[in-house]
Amino acid sequence: MTTTTTAPPPHKLTSKGQATRARILEQAAELIYTKGVHATNNEQLRRAAGVSGSQLNHYFPTKESLVLAVIGWQAERVLTLHRSERFTRFDSFDAFRAWADFYVSYERAYQEGCTLGSLASEIIKTDLDVHDELASSFDQWRSVFRDGIERMQRLGRLSAEADPTQLANLLLAAFQGGMLLSQVARDITPLKDALQTAIDHVQTFATSPDTDGRGA
Amino acid sequence: MTTTTTAPPPHKLTSKGQATRARILEQAAELIYTKGVHATNNEQLRRAAGVSGSQLNHYFPTKESLVLAVIGWQAERVLTLHRSERFTRFDSFDAFRAWADFYVSYERAYQEGCTLGSLASEIIKTDLDVHDELASSFDQWRSVFRDGIERMQRLGRLSAEADPTQLANLLLAAFQGGMLLSQVARDITPLKDALQTAIDHVQTFATSPDTDGRGA
Repeated sequence: MTTTTTAPPPHKLTSKGQATRARILEQAAELIYTKGVHATNNEQLRRAAGVSGSQLNHYFPTKESLVLAVIGWQAERVLTLHRSERFTRFDSFDAFRAWADFYVSYERAYQEGCTLGSLASEIIKTDLDVHDELASSFDQWRSVFRDGIERMQRLGRLSAEADPTQLANLLLAAFQGGMLLSQVARDITPLKDALQTAIDHVQTFATSPDTDGRGA
Repeated sequence: MTTTTTAPPPHKLTSKGQATRARILEQAAELIYTKGVHATNNEQLRRAAGVSGSQLNHYFPTKESLVLAVIGWQAERVLTLHRSERFTRFDSFDAFRAWADFYVSYERAYQEGCTLGSLASEIIKTDLDVHDELASSFDQWRSVFRDGIERMQRLGRLSAEADPTQLANLLLAAFQGGMLLSQVARDITPLKDALQTAIDHVQTFATSPDTDGRGA
């Protein structure tokens, strides 16, 4: 029954097929990030990716299959960045500050928001069956922060009193909410304030007084 | 040029006209909150409000005029609640905790999110010219928290070191981000964690040690 609406799994494609699929996906992600899911149509996507209608239909037979793939693609990018050496797996306050600085200086933050959060917000009330994919992506993202905070506790940098899951939820919520407020205000200040104070709060659990300076 | 797409201003309507307009607006707000802007169409709205197509067109000639009015309607409700005696103009930590408890026990929070924030997220990338209305609504919302924090400083409950605008941005971001995360997770925990820790952070600036207990 579902064969007519199911795209071929990427691993079954030839390398040329994989390249075409990747090109469509990258263009779809960019269009959706800039214009939103609803304003992105097949015609624009075909033109941007330089593929025919039948090619597009071959790789992504339905809008749902395309949106699912874009969620996976954006989540992969967000998670790869967060797990990169750049942020040393969030094992120090410096790493959290570097993370905030990175996004505060990201000029598209207050134009188009979070690549994954803004997509989630836009589609969460639609009939698209993408809920599990979204929930799993955000779970993994939260885990990056929670694992970092647990590591800081093991390293003796953070008090055992800190609740890693609670603080991870604060960091992720401050990020998502800050992104939305900055988009609405067309000003980076709300994101900057939210991230700085959320990290300040994590830092109130610091074991060493040297690192417990607010807004240090 | 714009007369064909401009709705009559509410104050120029007869009382019967005002009642009809209010009924349409209330139904539109409910439909948009439940199903999203894109999935809400004239046919559903006409049926829900019990009005004809020409009546609908008379009061709200375009989708933009309707969405603008819904933003104003939802903002009014949010601001009225936040300014109500229930939260004593946010002049104490108890008021902030009562506010968090109110939303954490609001069952639609993790089904449909914030009435205003979810609407903002859904339309911010569209061509609808509603940006100023959204920005003004969120500015007023932020001011409620900022004014409360300044009041607490004047009352000697909060240290002068606290930055009222920064903390207001943290509270509003934690709320918006927590709402989104709870919707995605279909679980109230992210919102609860984000609000509790954001208020914990405000409380680290308490002047009296009695009120400085974490999660008290």
